[in-house]
Amino acid sequence: MARLNSFFLPPDQWPSAPGDVVSLQGDEARHMLTVLRTQADQTVRLFDGQGNSGLFRVLKAGKKQASLETISLEDAPVSGSNLTLAIGWGKSKRRNYLFEKIVELQAEGVVFWEGVRSQGRLPSEPKETWREKCIQAAKQCGNPYLPSVSVLPDGIIGLIEFSASFDHCYLAWETEAATIPLKPLDLADGRSLVVIGPEGGMDESEAMQLMDAGFKPVTLGNSTLRWETAAAYCLSLAFFAGQEMK
Amino acid sequence: MARLNSFFLPPDQWPSAPGDVVSLQGDEARHMLTVLRTQADQTVRLFDGQGNSGLFRVLKAGKKQASLETISLEDAPVSGSNLTLAIGWGKSKRRNYLFEKIVELQAEGVVFWEGVRSQGRLPSEPKETWREKCIQAAKQCGNPYLPSVSVLPDGIIGLIEFSASFDHCYLAWETEAATIPLKPLDLADGRSLVVIGPEGGMDESEAMQLMDAGFKPVTLGNSTLRWETAAAYCLSLAFFAGQEMK
Repeated sequence: MARLNSFFLPPDQWPSAPGDVVSLQGDEARHMLTVLRTQADQTVRLFDGQGNSGLFRVLKAGKKQASLETISLEDAPVSGSNLTLAIGWGKSKRRNYLFEKIVELQAEGVVFWEGVRSQGRLPSEPKETWREKCIQAAKQCGNPYLPSVSVLPDGIIGLIEFSASFDHCYLAWETEAATIPLKPLDLADGRSLVVIGPEGGMDESEAMQLMDAGFKPVTLGNSTLRWETAAAYCLSLAFFAGQEMK
Repeated sequence: MARLNSFFLPPDQWPSAPGDVVSLQGDEARHMLTVLRTQADQTVRLFDGQGNSGLFRVLKAGKKQASLETISLEDAPVSGSNLTLAIGWGKSKRRNYLFEKIVELQAEGVVFWEGVRSQGRLPSEPKETWREKCIQAAKQCGNPYLPSVSVLPDGIIGLIEFSASFDHCYLAWETEAATIPLKPLDLADGRSLVVIGPEGGMDESEAMQLMDAGFKPVTLGNSTLRWETAAAYCLSLAFFAGQEMK
């Protein structure tokens, strides 16, 4: 089957059964109606970012809003990997790329924390554009889950508090002290958190605090990876592990 | 030790012993002298892209050229992974990203081939900017090897001819017919070639020709990956395999 165009419908508007009528508004309606020029009677795919997706028939294609009838609903699949990345904040033009890869490689989420060597100021809450980037990526790759995206206050202390709910906490540390490589198997069971330092690297005292809090130091290998390559590498190992376990 | 600035010296100019004097010219000299304002007596790192690297002392920092004395030479390390990616050509703004990731994740090389669904025309030879991008990435991450980068004529036939020198040939195919996942172990021994289709995907007849020629179909998982995410994923598995085997 040719790929259907996908649109995001917020979870509080998700239908409960075939026949239910829903309304698409805002950016998603604009994309459907103005950019893709979708018309009445066409079939599209909607998803809610929490695993739900389904086929819908366009009943009415207005200028800024579309109403659609539910044709069929799919069960939420088992989500991809249970990896959350905790990335040291930086002034990077490459952040959008990260959101794409997180969605495509089906990670659970990403949090940003402010390290000693972070450049620029961590925003007090996630930017709307981050979520939009995730939605775009989810539409493109068909992942019905949107990752959780958040910012952590209080630097390394906030990160340690955040880590409490995870089964495995790893610290990707570029140092000779970290000799054990991160493996797909490390990311296979339970929920994992992998910390990646900001662009200038992690401060040694920060690494020490994390290790004192139980984070396992791991190496990502003998190359000096850019932060977003380190992220793509961890996402890849976790995605591989997630595929293998099914 | 703080990271030294790295510069690329072509292999035909590589010194044979400490004390030898070399000359840096062109873009690399400009980067050293004008951008980084390196001065006489400073120590820098040079590499030749074929695994050689060493420390050098700047003897004379001119306007467009620098002469340097060899302080010490390092043995070429075992190269990272033995993976070559064969990527279906497309009009992508993301190609530079690919070169970076190939260098950082220490792959052997990349070749571009023109598929039935390729958009835009494959150049008849690799562009100079591709090599520059690889050099920049190598300077940044410290990889003393530059990947081989080439373009293949004759579409799928050229690709099949090219594949003759590889120990393992895989075809990453987005279809329900490919059920076996590509694994790090598949990329651990010998030289591997992984084919990734162009942005619109591979034509079924192309996939058939590759399979007839002995390529193994593999899946990269249950997500619709963009071509450069598929590439980063394969590079990550190979880099992991390369680390593990050492």
